[in-house]
Amino acid sequence: MTKLVTAVIKPFKVDDVKAALENLGVHGLTISEVQGYGRQKGHTEVYRGAEYKVDFVPKIKIEVVVTDEAADDLVAAITTAAQTGKIGDGKVWVVPVDSVVRVRTGERGTDAL
Amino acid sequence: MTKLVTAVIKPFKVDDVKAALENLGVHGLTISEVQGYGRQKGHTEVYRGAEYKVDFVPKIKIEVVVTDEAADDLVAAITTAAQTGKIGDGKVWVVPVDSVVRVRTGERGTDAL
Amino acid sequence: MTKLVTAVIKPFKVDDVKAALENLGVHGLTISEVQGYGRQKGHTEVYRGAEYKVDFVPKIKIEVVVTDEAADDLVAAITTAAQTGKIGDGKVWVVPVDSVVRVRTGERGTDAL
Ligand SMILES: Nc1ncnc2c1ncn2[C@@H]1O[C@H](COP(=O)(O)OP(=O)(O)OP(=O)(O)O)[C@@H](O)[C@H]1O
Ligand SMILES: Nc1ncnc2c1ncn2[C@@H]1O[C@H](COP(=O)(O)OP(=O)(O)OP(=O)(O)O)[C@@H](O)[C@H]1O
Ligand SMILES: Nc1ncnc2c1ncn2[C@@H]1O[C@H](COP(=O)(O)OP(=O)(O)OP(=O)(O)O)[C@@H](O)[C@H]1O
Ligand SMILES: [Mg+2]
Ligand SMILES: [Mg+2]
Ligand SMILES: [Mg+2]
Repeated sequence: MTKLVTAVIKPFKVDDVKAALENLGVHGLTISEVQGYGRQKGHTEVYRGAEYKVDFVPKIKIEVVVTDEAADDLVAAITTAAQTGKIGDGKVWVVPVDSVVRVRTGERGTDAL
Repeated sequence: MTKLVTAVIKPFKVDDVKAALENLGVHGLTISEVQGYGRQKGHTEVYRGAEYKVDFVPKIKIEVVVTDEAADDLVAAITTAAQTGKIGDGKVWVVPVDSVVRVRTGERGTDAL
Repeated sequence: MTKLVTAVIKPFKVDDVKAALENLGVHGLTISEVQGYGRQKGHTEVYRGAEYKVDFVPKIKIEVVVTDEAADDLVAAITTAAQTGKIGDGKVWVVPVDSVVRVRTGERGTDAL
């Protein structure tokens, strides 16, 4: 069985998170550009050295499908790697996955990872 | 326990939906630019005053992680706020979430929201 | 009951996948631009005729909410349509959906699809 781990983090932390995932032996991931806000509605967050005026602050979303067993360590590793201690560091959530397939081969389940 | 509510809506409705979510006390959300089509394959949808020629119509995806208890009200509020009564108004779906973490503090579960 | 099928595929395969889904009677879908890598870390993938130097290769993410019964056929159809036999063909995963709503009408469940 597998899980989908989704993290929304500060863009400049992508390389650190990627390195942490590689250390854990994660074999694949998907990223996309998103925008968002948390409890402070983005108002007080600093982005590229300037206080960000609008509600929505640019973030990167990382999605990783992993085995059930690996999910907790993955969440911990992302949390550590993405942390600056400042507001807006991000959010990580885990969703159950029914099935996963590698398109090239048709392999399924953990063989597809 | 928490849920992930995902809504794909008309771009000009984002502010209305955001206001509706703030009224419900939602503390955070993530948006991204997507494209899509529903039953009419996009052909007959109007975007920025002109009939849209291609299949894929620009939409905004909103993702919100909330408590189980809040999820139904959230879906109702998004649906009301995003509704114009015209085709292409959008789709909302809810997915179970196993766990959620605030990156800055490591807080988990509903404390992380 | 419904499922969310997510596929991350090669961009030039979007039309083939779309056609395959239409053949299955799928009524709606959402796509977005993402980047990612799998087992080869992207290094050896070819994109637009040139070997791609960076880790992250552009991909398209397709999301489709469908009935439980349709999900398996959908995954098979996407897999077949997106397959080139070369590395980087993509990944498909399926997540359970608690509920889905059509924004225009408020319809729920399979009526909302
Ligand atoms: N409940 C939520 N649902 C979906 N996305 C969220 C949620 N909360 C935050 N996010 C996303 O995560 C990003 C970072 O959130 P953020 O770290 O500011 O959360 P926070 O709860 O305000 O924590 P902090 O107090 O440390 O800032 C936001 O810009 C948004 O994209
Ligand atoms: N089954 C689906 N799976 C994933 N995304 C969908 C699905 N159906 C629609 N969407 C997304 O929602 C957007 C809006 O869909 P739309 O409101 O046109 O749905 P519809 O079922 O055709 O309803 P209506 O008849 O009111 O137009 C689409 O552009 C697409 O991005
Ligand atoms: N475990 C994963 N979690 C999330 N996304 C993934 C994962 N693995 C791959 N992806 C996404 O799918 C895309 C294609 O992956 P890819 O087809 O290279 O997988 P692979 O396992 O390396 O298979 P192959 O050996 O056929 O290349 C990646 O660019 C990435 O966006
Ligand atoms: Mg915040
Ligand atoms: Mg429609
Ligand atoms: Mg690969």
